[in-house]
Amino acid sequence: MKIIQIGASGHYAYAPEAAKKLRCEYVGIAMGDRSEKNTAMPSLAAYGFSPARFDTPEELFEKTDADVLVLNSYMGYNAKYACMALKRGISVFAEKPIATTTDDLKRVISAYRTANTTACLVGSRQERVCLCGMFGILDEPWFVCARELSTGGALGEIRLVHAQKSYRLGTREPFYSQRELYGGTIPWVSIHAIDWAWRFSGIRPVEVTARQSRVANGGNGSLESTACCLFTGENGAMISVSADYLRPSAAPTHDDDRIRLAGTEGILEVRDRRVFLLDGAGERELPLPGKTESIFERFLREIETGKPGTVSAMGSFYSTYLALCARQSADTGTTVKTDFDAFLRET
Amino acid sequence: MKIIQIGASGHYAYAPEAAKKLRCEYVGIAMGDRSEKNTAMPSLAAYGFSPARFDTPEELFEKTDADVLVLNSYMGYNAKYACMALKRGISVFAEKPIATTTDDLKRVISAYRTANTTACLVGSRQERVCLCGMFGILDEPWFVCARELSTGGALGEIRLVHAQKSYRLGTREPFYSQRELYGGTIPWVSIHAIDWAWRFSGIRPVEVTARQSRVANGGNGSLESTACCLFTGENGAMISVSADYLRPSAAPTHDDDRIRLAGTEGILEVRDRRVFLLDGAGERELPLPGKTESIFERFLREIETGKPGTVSAMGSFYSTYLALCARQSADTGTTVKTDFDAFLRET
Repeated sequence: MKIIQIGASGHYAYAPEAAKKLRCEYVGIAMGDRSEKNTAMPSLAAYGFSPARFDTPEELFEKTDADVLVLNSYMGYNAKYACMALKRGISVFAEKPIATTTDDLKRVISAYRTANTTACLVGSRQERVCLCGMFGILDEPWFVCARELSTGGALGEIRLVHAQKSYRLGTREPFYSQRELYGGTIPWVSIHAIDWAWRFSGIRPVEVTARQSRVANGGNGSLESTACCLFTGENGAMISVSADYLRPSAAPTHDDDRIRLAGTEGILEVRDRRVFLLDGAGERELPLPGKTESIFERFLREIETGKPGTVSAMGSFYSTYLALCARQSADTGTTVKTDFDAFLRET
Repeated sequence: MKIIQIGASGHYAYAPEAAKKLRCEYVGIAMGDRSEKNTAMPSLAAYGFSPARFDTPEELFEKTDADVLVLNSYMGYNAKYACMALKRGISVFAEKPIATTTDDLKRVISAYRTANTTACLVGSRQERVCLCGMFGILDEPWFVCARELSTGGALGEIRLVHAQKSYRLGTREPFYSQRELYGGTIPWVSIHAIDWAWRFSGIRPVEVTARQSRVANGGNGSLESTACCLFTGENGAMISVSADYLRPSAAPTHDDDRIRLAGTEGILEVRDRRVFLLDGAGERELPLPGKTESIFERFLREIETGKPGTVSAMGSFYSTYLALCARQSADTGTTVKTDFDAFLRET
């Protein structure tokens, strides 16, 4: 398979290792706009890739014949370039959020549907056009363990979830200061915790109330330094999610990812890269599984074989939708309904 | 000092040890109503107390001449009996919440003010009439440590707080099934976490959005098994609070109390009865102070000397007010303003 890349501003590093392992070619790269620096070449070269460099994404699409796009520019461009790829039948591995506005998200979903209908009807280069958000944290052994256990029913009916993202602020590139390019802390940071929460718990939120603040953001323009979201599911189950950039620089790791799932049969926690279970047999730490195939490796296999990867297109759209609803709640100070079925019907 | 007690349904056990230590008399006891069982006599006898038993609180007040009331019947009666005591110039050590409705809370605050005005004007049995809610968890060494550190400014400006109460459901007496008597899980359980949160952080909430659910409550009528509250303070600081009765019976302790305070200079956590600090010097566990005087011992000294105890009357009213606002939000599905100054002006 032939890979192209747009941008070098996020988590594209998921791609080259798997690309090499599966003997893909890296045929081209362009930045999202003129302000974005192409810092990706050395890390691609480390895996033996030296993609041709193009001045614009448009030129990249015109002059290459790719199967997969690694989309990793400023988040505000995700929807635009994802749509351009999907319209050409190119599968997309995209930084989250998939879009930074609900209108843009509708465009991507529509382009994804059309691409797959077209692929089936006319027999284009591949039968399926795939999309996957960069929710690679799901591959971490502690989250693999938690996901398997909770979705396997070990906690009974899950009634209460709290998930946490805490990051070092560090030095942020200028685009984080601009809402149009960054998208906001809820869609970029909280989205991971939102994603774990609905996946692991099975709770489908029907509404969200969220708040956010820019105080103490280190001079990073409109970047929100803190955010809290409270989702309510059908039957009254609850998810709360917090995100902050307050982790001191002296912290032992960049992030402090956590989730606590409380069900009728037990309570599961991910904390300090460990997993703890409390149930009828008492309290204990669980052994972690070995490293699994990476999210991008599984995505490449999904494109080839149709076997589901770590994160489906619909799952990527859903987490983006929930995060954008939460951001809307925080922006407006209101409670926002989260009816994804209705959203899809409007798309 | 002479002590009387109403009820035997909660945390009155704070009282007899301190009462013995300070050589108080335990002159009388009555239950809140006929359905309440007087199970307190053996634990009072263990400290050498055998108070006279009265059929009703009214009779107890008429036939004794007490300085302090230990008020510990069903929570729905707290306001009524607190007012009866305050009107007689008797100080009150009351189970939380101080009242289970905002109208009742206004009555208690009004009675407290009048009692102190009267005491000053006419020189009644004591110069000050005091009130203290049973927020005795604040005496736990891990919370003493956290309170001192965070209120001392070690975390800088605190921007984000998450606090947790998790209880075993166990077997609950029938009154927990009735909202009128129990008051609700937010006013009875979440209130502790709300209390720690505003005390330790200095955040004064201006609004709250809360949700609660009765699903999986073990057949306990209207008792809420889960609840989440999201408070926003002035300047956008946030407090989220979760409470649940989902802790399995096989858990090593009855409760799992936690708080995480994230500030501009550091992050402090109470978890597993330990305290962890992460700041510019890295991550470390903090040594715990020795046991302090109990909340009731400090309350008795407050009555004698005027020296502030663990929890002031105003602090008890404030935590009750915030919890009742959160319950209102959860009952109605709306966001509720929390303007305590305005509430006091209306009182």
